Amino acid sequence: MNTTISQRVEALRQWMREKGIHVFITPSTDPHSGEYVPNHWHSREWISGFNGSAGTAVVTLTHAALWTDNRYFLAAAEQLEGTPFELMKLGLEDTPTIAQWITSKYNPSASSGQASSGQGSQWKVGIDGTCFTAAEAKALEQELSILHSSLFTLHSSEDPYDEIWTDRPPIPANPVELHPLKYAGEDVASKLRRIRQATAEQGAQAVVISMLDEVAWTLNLRGTDVDYNPVFVSYLLVGMDFATLYINQEKLTEEVKAYLLQEKVEVKDYGLIFDDLRQLTQPVLVQPDKTNVSVVQSLRQAVEGNCPVSTMKIMKNETEIRGYRSAMLKDGIAMVKWMKWALETIPQGNQTELTLSAQLEAFRREQPLFRGVSFETIMGYGAHAAIVHYEPSPETDIPVEPRGLLLCDSGGQYLDGTTDITRTLPLGELTWEERRDYTLVLRGWINLARAVFPRGTYGTQLDALAREPMWKYGINYLHGTGHGVGSYLCVHEGPHQFRMNYMPQPLVPTMTITDEPGIYIAGSHGVRHENTMLVVEAKLRECDNSEGLTFGPYYQFEQLTLCPILTSPIVCSLLQPEELDWFNSYQQMVYDRLAPHLDEPHRSWLRQQTLPIK
Amino acid sequence: MNTTISQRVEALRQWMREKGIHVFITPSTDPHSGEYVPNHWHSREWISGFNGSAGTAVVTLTHAALWTDNRYFLAAAEQLEGTPFELMKLGLEDTPTIAQWITSKYNPSASSGQASSGQGSQWKVGIDGTCFTAAEAKALEQELSILHSSLFTLHSSEDPYDEIWTDRPPIPANPVELHPLKYAGEDVASKLRRIRQATAEQGAQAVVISMLDEVAWTLNLRGTDVDYNPVFVSYLLVGMDFATLYINQEKLTEEVKAYLLQEKVEVKDYGLIFDDLRQLTQPVLVQPDKTNVSVVQSLRQAVEGNCPVSTMKIMKNETEIRGYRSAMLKDGIAMVKWMKWALETIPQGNQTELTLSAQLEAFRREQPLFRGVSFETIMGYGAHAAIVHYEPSPETDIPVEPRGLLLCDSGGQYLDGTTDITRTLPLGELTWEERRDYTLVLRGWINLARAVFPRGTYGTQLDALAREPMWKYGINYLHGTGHGVGSYLCVHEGPHQFRMNYMPQPLVPTMTITDEPGIYIAGSHGVRHENTMLVVEAKLRECDNSEGLTFGPYYQFEQLTLCPILTSPIVCSLLQPEELDWFNSYQQMVYDRLAPHLDEPHRSWLRQQTLPIK
Repeated sequence: MNTTISQRVEALRQWMREKGIHVFITPSTDPHSGEYVPNHWHSREWISGFNGSAGTAVVTLTHAALWTDNRYFLAAAEQLEGTPFELMKLGLEDTPTIAQWITSKYNPSASSGQASSGQGSQWKVGIDGTCFTAAEAKALEQELSILHSSLFTLHSSEDPYDEIWTDRPPIPANPVELHPLKYAGEDVASKLRRIRQATAEQGAQAVVISMLDEVAWTLNLRGTDVDYNPVFVSYLLVGMDFATLYINQEKLTEEVKAYLLQEKVEVKDYGLIFDDLRQLTQPVLVQPDKTNVSVVQSLRQAVEGNCPVSTMKIMKNETEIRGYRSAMLKDGIAMVKWMKWALETIPQGNQTELTLSAQLEAFRREQPLFRGVSFETIMGYGAHAAIVHYEPSPETDIPVEPRGLLLCDSGGQYLDGTTDITRTLPLGELTWEERRDYTLVLRGWINLARAVFPRGTYGTQLDALAREPMWKYGINYLHGTGHGVGSYLCVHEGPHQFRMNYMPQPLVPTMTITDEPGIYIAGSHGVRHENTMLVVEAKLRECDNSEGLTFGPYYQFEQLTLCPILTSPIVCSLLQPEELDWFNSYQQMVYDRLAPHLDEPHRSWLRQQTLPIK
Repeated sequence: MNTTISQRVEALRQWMREKGIHVFITPSTDPHSGEYVPNHWHSREWISGFNGSAGTAVVTLTHAALWTDNRYFLAAAEQLEGTPFELMKLGLEDTPTIAQWITSKYNPSASSGQASSGQGSQWKVGIDGTCFTAAEAKALEQELSILHSSLFTLHSSEDPYDEIWTDRPPIPANPVELHPLKYAGEDVASKLRRIRQATAEQGAQAVVISMLDEVAWTLNLRGTDVDYNPVFVSYLLVGMDFATLYINQEKLTEEVKAYLLQEKVEVKDYGLIFDDLRQLTQPVLVQPDKTNVSVVQSLRQAVEGNCPVSTMKIMKNETEIRGYRSAMLKDGIAMVKWMKWALETIPQGNQTELTLSAQLEAFRREQPLFRGVSFETIMGYGAHAAIVHYEPSPETDIPVEPRGLLLCDSGGQYLDGTTDITRTLPLGELTWEERRDYTLVLRGWINLARAVFPRGTYGTQLDALAREPMWKYGINYLHGTGHGVGSYLCVHEGPHQFRMNYMPQPLVPTMTITDEPGIYIAGSHGVRHENTMLVVEAKLRECDNSEGLTFGPYYQFEQLTLCPILTSPIVCSLLQPEELDWFNSYQQMVYDRLAPHLDEPHRSWLRQQTLPIK
């Protein structure tokens, strides 16, 4: 029996009884709906002992369960062993939803202090409203109401963990720093002007910006409060004639304070936003799938719509685009150094996934303006590469030997840009399946990379270009084919994406997007090739006049990533002549751009790797 | 001044004043939401004089306007000349919507008999509720309410044209005929059983089937009430223990009556459905985008969902699939005879679009079980082929000469199947653009035809395969790339389609779908290639074991259409080797299947046309 977890659950139940709450739901998110969550909000891990990135703990006065997805079935089963939590496997047919499970546990005689007396037999389902988006809370409430309209009420209560989690880590107080105009390319006054206009166009007089990357983008500030994403915990409220940053003021240096004063951005304490929102009489714009329900419930007049920043920040300005090109050059140099080093060093023995990963980071660190990796490096050797989200740890690390494939998905945060690249390295002898899969992924990668498409096209329409070559062999991958990349911000930036499911944001020039198909054969091998690309105006074949250009304009992709794809595993007969031509010219472009920055041994190694194939 | 139309509008206004109605909207649809509308419901044409297939006439007591799309801007402008109707061009930025226009004409002092006294200054907007779907009526009502919440009420009144259109054609009384089980493949009892089960699954106890092809499919009956589609005017109401056909009973022969009695389908007069619906106490399933608002308003308890027949009839049974293969063989023979004849006859002079069209129908008529063409033949020569919906008429007909391209999109209704095929014929010397466009369309056509895709894939994901080759040249087409085809039913059958816009119905085996990309260069030429295909289980490359098959099953297309694509215009260098290989084997398959049924001259002509190209 895991007594620690049992004691924690009992503490939560005690709190629930005091508050008259019958069920409490603890998700894995924080108030700002980001990809990485500061330790302060790791409440689900604290209450259940399960430490995966995705999971929801639900506790009644008598039962407890935890929902997670198939990435974590094994780990969760192990970690929940001996705790009060039953594992609920998301995606399996007989797994109940949270609402179904709650209704199945309903027991009118369950006594919960004041609730049982005051509310008769109705159950109060408690959540911390700051950690649920308005859309999630609404969906849960609707499902409970469909299942049993009168028996449940959703109750957005305060956060129990402030009380029961005695050694809870504080909200990060790391300092905020300026992101200079020479990298940001647009000043705060201009951004606020555009936000105010777009807010008014949606019929609101103010907007709550709660996504951390949107606050950082708007104010040209950066921080270090979460892993990998240079953001800081805060809310930004923008009205027609004011802007207020809600933040722990210890985080602000004198320089940043002076800057904010000059930019006419008022600063208030983080927790004060709710009081201020309650006093606003004008209509306030919120985005239900991003804004937390406590914010929305504080408003007298909420206007549901899209936070203007979400689509503004994905259109990169000229300075940012110049920055990407500069960051990609540096990142390409680091990757070339690492690939050459890895291919020469691995046969000498003593390398593991973690040592290879450390050396890659070391090569990146040599480059100017490097600030850290943009996500935890995926360095998967052999069968590990078939685990899509594999990140080596001391427990899983294995020696890397001179045979088979090594998949490396990594990226850097540079002050002038964020990078995301995957290369799969042949380390020695390969099987036919490894070479075939390397080539099929390459073929899909090429076909998407060289696509041309008219205005209005969205990622779902193009996604199949990357998958079709492997579909013909009865192979597919279940992740998306691409995502946006921030400018010294989050490496995963939406809403535009290449996906099998519907995602209607059209691709337009100045957006960044990755191209990253893959093949994963469980227990055997994995292949992925990934470049970051920029949407640009198309150079059309034969179209030297406007007559041929019908229903345009047309767009295409510029390859931002500058790094060769190693050619030795490629089965040329599986590629068509046009595909080979395009690939050879990409490789030549990589050589031309990187060679002037390399010393002779690296230059001649790169020359070998980028020779045309046919 | 067009006095006839003015008098008709005045008669409508007189009726409106008597009824207290301030605005009356006349659409171009009928109670059954089909593609072709019987003359009885050509009210919009009668009131406005405009005879295009799509348009909506709106009449207030003082103003009148007609909305139509860009296919008809020229024709409508001509036909509305001298009438009270102002032309409203749909799709242009400054064109008001119907609701905007109505609100702009609002005049509180407009006197309309009883309304002006009874309702104060509120305007009644009248529609014939049988000719609006529930979804259309709701959208109109919402838009009026957003624009001016309190000033307008939508009033689903009776049909004024019964009164004011004195020589109105009757509802067709053409006889209904049996569609034997040897073609239909599933008896009525089985179909009703499946409909009842699917209705109950959606929480209803009865369903109103109002689409004419759905009634015909369910009852294994066919008719001739509209052009091209073998359907008959009726409603079918299916409950858990009854089925009632509402129809003009003169249409039923003794044989059909006996058949319906045996199948336990009661027969009542067409107009009686509304009274019966008003008396039903159980929940009744309706599909808001297909069921008319008069039906929905008659129900005490409407359940909104999908009519089960719409997805049942698109999954073809073995008998129907055998029927398609048989019909396609006959249609291919007719097409080969026509193509050979056309290429030999056109150089002799005296052929026009209409004579060529007539001869094609004559060749089809020679084939067993032929019942008529499945839509009006598109026979466009030269610049006419660039008009996407061009159908030659005596007014537009032109001589066809031995140069340039002839686009022929046609199909047949056979008792055992419906066909839809487009071929573009080179008649002599071609320009570079004509050859290039012929090849680019072919390339897209091949790439979609040879696609392989996993379960769950919908048409929007595959559509770009057909467009990408021409997108690279800055060319696109604005129609869909494909649609379902009925089994001796409507040649356009949904909801599955290949489209640029989102259409989520997955493609699954036994569905039919066309593959028909095109290029249209205004004033110059047009190219389209079209086959009808069947979705089948995929034959996967190298996959002799289940290990390689990940996230399947996988599907692909069988080419149902058996007719060569003429090879002389093809620029082989614009095709990739895999595409040429696929094309050559399709052509060879066509030869192998058709040759045994052709005489020596046709066989040797076909041999020439299907020789491999490279």
